[in-house]
Amino acid sequence: MTHTPRLYVPAITPFAPDLSVDTARFTASCRRILDDGADGLAVFGTTSEATSLSVTERIAALDALVDAGIDPACLIPGTGCAALPDTVALTRHATGLGCKGVLMLPPFYYKPLSDEAVFASYAAVIDSVPDVALYLYHIPQIAGVGLSIPLIGRLIEAFPGTVRGLKDSSGKWDNTAAVIASFPGIETFSSSESLLPVNVAAGGAGCISASANVNAAGIMRLIRALGTADEAAALAQVSAVRTACEGMPLIPGVKAVAAIRMADPNYARVRPPLVPLTQDQTAQAARAAALCLWQEPVS
Amino acid sequence: MTHTPRLYVPAITPFAPDLSVDTARFTASCRRILDDGADGLAVFGTTSEATSLSVTERIAALDALVDAGIDPACLIPGTGCAALPDTVALTRHATGLGCKGVLMLPPFYYKPLSDEAVFASYAAVIDSVPDVALYLYHIPQIAGVGLSIPLIGRLIEAFPGTVRGLKDSSGKWDNTAAVIASFPGIETFSSSESLLPVNVAAGGAGCISASANVNAAGIMRLIRALGTADEAAALAQVSAVRTACEGMPLIPGVKAVAAIRMADPNYARVRPPLVPLTQDQTAQAARAAALCLWQEPVS
Repeated sequence: MTHTPRLYVPAITPFAPDLSVDTARFTASCRRILDDGADGLAVFGTTSEATSLSVTERIAALDALVDAGIDPACLIPGTGCAALPDTVALTRHATGLGCKGVLMLPPFYYKPLSDEAVFASYAAVIDSVPDVALYLYHIPQIAGVGLSIPLIGRLIEAFPGTVRGLKDSSGKWDNTAAVIASFPGIETFSSSESLLPVNVAAGGAGCISASANVNAAGIMRLIRALGTADEAAALAQVSAVRTACEGMPLIPGVKAVAAIRMADPNYARVRPPLVPLTQDQTAQAARAAALCLWQEPVS
Repeated sequence: MTHTPRLYVPAITPFAPDLSVDTARFTASCRRILDDGADGLAVFGTTSEATSLSVTERIAALDALVDAGIDPACLIPGTGCAALPDTVALTRHATGLGCKGVLMLPPFYYKPLSDEAVFASYAAVIDSVPDVALYLYHIPQIAGVGLSIPLIGRLIEAFPGTVRGLKDSSGKWDNTAAVIASFPGIETFSSSESLLPVNVAAGGAGCISASANVNAAGIMRLIRALGTADEAAALAQVSAVRTACEGMPLIPGVKAVAAIRMADPNYARVRPPLVPLTQDQTAQAARAAALCLWQEPVS
């Protein structure tokens, strides 16, 4: 099965000086990303500091996006929490809003977890929200719990039509390739735009990338350039931005670059446990921002 | 400084067949533990499946205990969540109820975290709830985030009188010994009753142990026997129970033993991501229960 390559963006969550969610800036930055051409928003991912937000905050912020006119059909909010009732509440809310789907972490406190435990956890959510469109979120180096190929297969088989895709944030291309090869019918996303060409060539669905917060236009150029003479130049640009972002603590770094691009330092604020960039790192963020700005076509 | 050795119990959280919190059984099992002689309850610990409960469920369950007449001064509820506003809400609630203190995990999604990040996380909670009596919870193998000696020292120095103690669930006695030696003024608990004699001899404050759910009477006997001719026998009994519990997946195992002792299978139920014991493991739980029952004095 061939998937049209897509870019979904794990949008940053801006905070006010009192560290409450800054809904106005959240909506504004989400709009900016869509204006840059992204296919949609995977809000409340790791880059979004979603696990640092309460359920109430996440529901209110998602409602705010939809109230502001953003089409729920382009949203894949993260809903996986440590606590099952929280995951169910967020999944039910997002599904009820008509979101394209939800991107669901496994429960991430207890570890190690057996495949049986992870299966039971996803099954309990699906039992509670049977119409969920489920995108699995594999990020074992942070969550401490991963999603094995047999587990993914068991979920697809047990709940036909429910599992729509997977984001592989392991950084291990061999694993992504195995997921695509094993389950060509689901949309498998890489977590870095540097892997976009190989992901799409293998039958994947594109990427959901932190650095897309600041370079959605560049990544969309790459998607359009795939298989053309422009591909190498487009890939070089996105890879340069990606490498610059990865040279900093990724999430505060992306927020700092976003702040520079939006000309508003408020976008750089992080909530604990994340810590702000140092002065040196902020200078590096400025260079990354320049990489985005100067390579964008001035039309 | 000498601390009177104490036993606090990370009480199990019973669930109804629909996996909601079974408040009546929660209250009953907490009462049973106090009747067995425990000094208090560290409800909402790892053994309590606290991170599998919503904030609303945790607040309601704590209120239920106090409403049932359990003295808040003997309660040290766990309040540490991945999300800062959740930790603040639970800490404020427990502090407002007059609890002895709160046992606080660091935020446990993002990892690795620097000491700076963990410090900022605790500081943000203390800033929001300045009268909190804080017990730090070190369980790096589960949380994925640990509490270093310099971090503990920095918190004690920055917030005089706030840090009252620490539970070391690392299982590494050398670390516990270093905490006690470095900070003799705070109450440092081990996570296993097998370590009680060495903990108390070093100047620690006792233990907060999963298996105390089913053997509080035995552990209290050990505390009373410390330094007497009865110590070795008391230690042998608690160690036998502990070893039996550790031979199973610990939390479902302790719940199964509790169910057998309470003669009520409902106590054995777990919430995903934990999975029930197998048949073989349940037989093992029965043996562990027998170890508790048969060695309790029939008076």
